[in-house]
Amino acid sequence: MDMESESDSDAETMRCISCQEDYDAHDGGTCKECYDEANDTEEDLKREIEDLRAKVAFLKLCDSMDYPNHYSTAPTPYSTRFSDVILVALEGTSGAPAPAVPAHKAVLASRSPVFRAMLENEMEESRSGTIKINDVSYEALRAFVNYLYTADADFNEHMAYSLLVLAEKYQHNAKLVLEASLSMITENMDKLTKREEFLELKEKDPHLIVEIYEASLSKQVNTAACKDSSQKS
Amino acid sequence: MDMESESDSDAETMRCISCQEDYDAHDGGTCKECYDEANDTEEDLKREIEDLRAKVAFLKLCDSMDYPNHYSTAPTPYSTRFSDVILVALEGTSGAPAPAVPAHKAVLASRSPVFRAMLENEMEESRSGTIKINDVSYEALRAFVNYLYTADADFNEHMAYSLLVLAEKYQHNAKLVLEASLSMITENMDKLTKREEFLELKEKDPHLIVEIYEASLSKQVNTAACKDSSQKS
Repeated sequence: MDMESESDSDAETMRCISCQEDYDAHDGGTCKECYDEANDTEEDLKREIEDLRAKVAFLKLCDSMDYPNHYSTAPTPYSTRFSDVILVALEGTSGAPAPAVPAHKAVLASRSPVFRAMLENEMEESRSGTIKINDVSYEALRAFVNYLYTADADFNEHMAYSLLVLAEKYQHNAKLVLEASLSMITENMDKLTKREEFLELKEKDPHLIVEIYEASLSKQVNTAACKDSSQKS
Repeated sequence: MDMESESDSDAETMRCISCQEDYDAHDGGTCKECYDEANDTEEDLKREIEDLRAKVAFLKLCDSMDYPNHYSTAPTPYSTRFSDVILVALEGTSGAPAPAVPAHKAVLASRSPVFRAMLENEMEESRSGTIKINDVSYEALRAFVNYLYTADADFNEHMAYSLLVLAEKYQHNAKLVLEASLSMITENMDKLTKREEFLELKEKDPHLIVEIYEASLSKQVNTAACKDSSQKS
């Protein structure tokens, strides 16, 4: 501690042990004890994040030959080994059938009560081992299934609507995909509200549109609040 | 800011904005700016923890009728619906066969390269749909499989050895179960080193014993370091 030179000669300033700048009473923050405590808390939180990331990496059902990097944030392809059910995207009225998206009954049933009901009861889906999904592109369906296996929301703004609809339809526990789709949509609100899909969705699923607008509004409020507080500090 | 009353009258002390106590230059921590920054960091870390917990809850393959509470830390039972393979515990030479533990090839193969090799190649396990596991109790095997599905290390000290052996044998990506078993073992080091299983394991799997001792030592070092730093502050 070499504070003698400055602090003792000028009793009104102190040296910040974080940024090493001098400060006076009006810019005073915490005492050393509270600083140490906050540091320990931050270490604990970082350790918890490491542990949770390791759990997420462990729980992803993925297919890479070398096991997933614990700390990778890139989306991993979901595992299609030992598939026992296929999903087929039926987009509009176009003729050519889309490629099948392989999946597992256990995973679909665990993620969505709608899939579970389809697969457990004597319905066409459980007999044929094929689940047909209307009004969705192959790419969006694949991104949705990948999300169910890995929790990676790896999709572009064109898929965001379809995914939102899929999440609502099949997935009552869809916090993550809902948030990711909504943030993708709200970021592109100006462009997207003019698109045909938006108008269609308004007709078919008005409560989703309400959710989109609410998310967009709450984002604007949050952004404003952040700007406000960052200007203050 | 009502610092006039104290701070201005006594120029050598400042009021900590965290604990609200006065401090002098020798107990000085940070300036206000660094305090605010640290606060923001803590908020960000807490938000990341919330998101990661939601992902873990989403990715667990569990079986409860009502979907898992996102913030529950209690172990959830893994899903056995649509099982396509069974595991059987063969403990010692006792006569009565243990109940089968149902599982899914896709999950076992995704978690362990050893299971994957067994199930993908034309081995007895893949033909019969039964994987026999030697020298393990039914309870420990069930806890191991539950762990593979949910990342919940829900086992007592009696299972810790078996799980450590299972994790080593089947699970190259077993950071979580290794840590949990090792911590269970090291906490009970005194009792456990005297038990018969420990002596047996020493014969069969000496590198595991080395790992146990290393974990125990590093724990002692860490505990000592923590005590040391908490005494200082």
